[in-house]
Amino acid sequence: MSEKKRRQGETGPSPTGKKSRPSSRAEELRKQLKPDADILASLRKMCAASQSSSSASKTLTLSDLNLSSACREVSDRDNASVQLSIERAALDAALSILSSRGFSFDIPSRSSSNQLYVPELDRIVLRNKTSSRPFASLSTVRKATITARVLSLVYAVIRRNIHVTKRDLFYTDVKLFQDQTQSDAVLDDVSCMLGCTRSSLHVVASEKGVVVGRLVFYDDGDRIDCTKMGIGGKAIPPNIDRVSDLESDALFILLVEKDAAFMRLAEDRFYNRFPCIIVTAKGQPDVATRLFLKRMKSELKLPVLALVDSDPYGLKILSVYMCGSKNMSYDSSNLTTPDIKWLGVRPSDLDKYQVPEQCRLPMTDQDVKAGKDLLEEDFVKRNEGWVKELETMVRTRQKAEIQALSSFGFQYLTEVYLPLKMQQKDWL
Amino acid sequence: MSEKKRRQGETGPSPTGKKSRPSSRAEELRKQLKPDADILASLRKMCAASQSSSSASKTLTLSDLNLSSACREVSDRDNASVQLSIERAALDAALSILSSRGFSFDIPSRSSSNQLYVPELDRIVLRNKTSSRPFASLSTVRKATITARVLSLVYAVIRRNIHVTKRDLFYTDVKLFQDQTQSDAVLDDVSCMLGCTRSSLHVVASEKGVVVGRLVFYDDGDRIDCTKMGIGGKAIPPNIDRVSDLESDALFILLVEKDAAFMRLAEDRFYNRFPCIIVTAKGQPDVATRLFLKRMKSELKLPVLALVDSDPYGLKILSVYMCGSKNMSYDSSNLTTPDIKWLGVRPSDLDKYQVPEQCRLPMTDQDVKAGKDLLEEDFVKRNEGWVKELETMVRTRQKAEIQALSSFGFQYLTEVYLPLKMQQKDWL
Repeated sequence: MSEKKRRQGETGPSPTGKKSRPSSRAEELRKQLKPDADILASLRKMCAASQSSSSASKTLTLSDLNLSSACREVSDRDNASVQLSIERAALDAALSILSSRGFSFDIPSRSSSNQLYVPELDRIVLRNKTSSRPFASLSTVRKATITARVLSLVYAVIRRNIHVTKRDLFYTDVKLFQDQTQSDAVLDDVSCMLGCTRSSLHVVASEKGVVVGRLVFYDDGDRIDCTKMGIGGKAIPPNIDRVSDLESDALFILLVEKDAAFMRLAEDRFYNRFPCIIVTAKGQPDVATRLFLKRMKSELKLPVLALVDSDPYGLKILSVYMCGSKNMSYDSSNLTTPDIKWLGVRPSDLDKYQVPEQCRLPMTDQDVKAGKDLLEEDFVKRNEGWVKELETMVRTRQKAEIQALSSFGFQYLTEVYLPLKMQQKDWL
Repeated sequence: MSEKKRRQGETGPSPTGKKSRPSSRAEELRKQLKPDADILASLRKMCAASQSSSSASKTLTLSDLNLSSACREVSDRDNASVQLSIERAALDAALSILSSRGFSFDIPSRSSSNQLYVPELDRIVLRNKTSSRPFASLSTVRKATITARVLSLVYAVIRRNIHVTKRDLFYTDVKLFQDQTQSDAVLDDVSCMLGCTRSSLHVVASEKGVVVGRLVFYDDGDRIDCTKMGIGGKAIPPNIDRVSDLESDALFILLVEKDAAFMRLAEDRFYNRFPCIIVTAKGQPDVATRLFLKRMKSELKLPVLALVDSDPYGLKILSVYMCGSKNMSYDSSNLTTPDIKWLGVRPSDLDKYQVPEQCRLPMTDQDVKAGKDLLEEDFVKRNEGWVKELETMVRTRQKAEIQALSSFGFQYLTEVYLPLKMQQKDWL
């Protein structure tokens, strides 16, 4: 059916009123499209290269690097091992108390002065500075108590093998925590202290993302075939540790900023024409979607191509996927997916595809400032192509949404723009 | 597994620290719980009653009522019939032009003076006032042109049998529409004019909701079994007209305000213990979730029980599901689900379940005002129980979130609170 629909779109009469408002450039580009078999052949090569390079060169980890200052990262750990760590912490405290020394927690500092950008890894990590949190001190007694309480709550959650939200955690002892920022902050402390991810502590964020396409996985034991998820797609589960056995015959992962573009791709079953997995967090990426993308990328070893708005905000979203956010830098290796390719919509696309003037939006001063700030970021500077695109954006002071492509017809995105991008390997 | 987990939760040692912080009321309530078989028997009776009453008494429609002023509603219509209506409108315009009378659209007024609350239907509808929109008038030429353009765009979308968003529609002719509020407003006009829903025009909103539990349906031809959707659940599709063949052995629909509560219910597979369908729009209900709920309720004839925060905002969310929002009143019969029962968390629950003081939040003056405003609303006044609860809320000036129940243990919601509500048929 999707095949039929597509052909009709390519060659049939266009009822979108294009005849009366001809867009010669759009037609011209449509004619440049080669047969799908050719495009697929080149995509297969790219995919194979990506898989062999990731299996040949072992992924660099923090321990492979000889860093002058020791650094700290957390990792995913199983229930038994986290349980053991908490028991050990409790035992240490008890022994310390019994030997009349009181007790104290050693908490890694998460302040920006203790953060470090590691270019080889392309992400932010924590240096090794810690601070002591003694119970027998007026200034730290509250935080030490909260830390002990959070440890005991997390222990209970893990023993029951359930998952809870930060909000649930807060509500179990409102009297002590007072407000949620306090329990949230200590939860991050505990995560660093035990050296495990927040997912390993079974404290999860709410879900926002959806996935559709050539992916099969298990969600809490249920087999999910994402080619059979209709147009709505499968909601990405909040508990990544219940996700297992990912399988795919896709050639790439298409990361989409927005819901509307996702819907277009899902309805047109784009993944049947070009085997891919389509994923979106519907705007600002949430933790669950970032974990899911990371998981797909590392287990399936597929290239990731990103489709975002042509504005500074679109790039910022990419940066969160790639480098993480600063306040969770201790967990960056589990949350970040380096090496995402910027497929589009890029500032240079606006002229290349002759997006009409009235579909481009003028950038505000704030937008321009955000663009200039991005030019100073390491993850941008590393990629010459990105720098050029951003400079174009700031110079022309023009931005555009993915939907601006609808001006050439509602299915232009899936019928011409993306296939042509694939054919020309037009990503940076 | 869910069975095992639950038993452990009920009788096993509680590792959530409840021993050290006893909550005698919580334990007392837990002991009041009867065996599941008893509760299920009474739920089955309720469900059967709901199904026989809805099949015996035909649902009241606007045409059944003898209203003094004629009223207008839109309905779902198939592609062919919408296409025909648009062709007829175009033909009328052409004939009118050929007979030298120019052309004009007759547009139903959507202003509040043309709205009417119909108590028998428990929803807002439009009166029959229309206004003329002639092309040959300076004050309406722009709107008449936009109307013609939207008609032609919608026609194209329907002929291709695809779905687009409002944003897509706007971008096809930015020069004419200038900003999206203009094309959006005319889209609503066109919907009223043709007498069909916005879904029938194939213009859809983005999706936000998720569903899990005892429901099987088809999303664009793919069979979706919502008991096999893991913890993440199935994303509710934006295009309700591609949803078909709903089947269910559930006894009720559990409508949940928040994501976190949904996650708890999904992880504990609550629907295996009490057969139900669990659905959430993650806050403010979107059109897709409202359509989906309406669809489930009318096809499966199941009672709907709502679990929302105990605050004015929670009730407002219920009102949107039940009575619709004012600016889409012309479409209220397709979007609204009357007869939703308020299960909890209700103001009276705070004392009944002895929710600790520190888990209740003081209401702001604005909250209190919102509560008082709700007391004036028709949908509240109709239900004596609701009035009493709201009066309690406003008097005590206390509110509480669903998560406040976590103070008795993370699984208190699924293990005690909800089962007890079912057992006691405690809804209004």
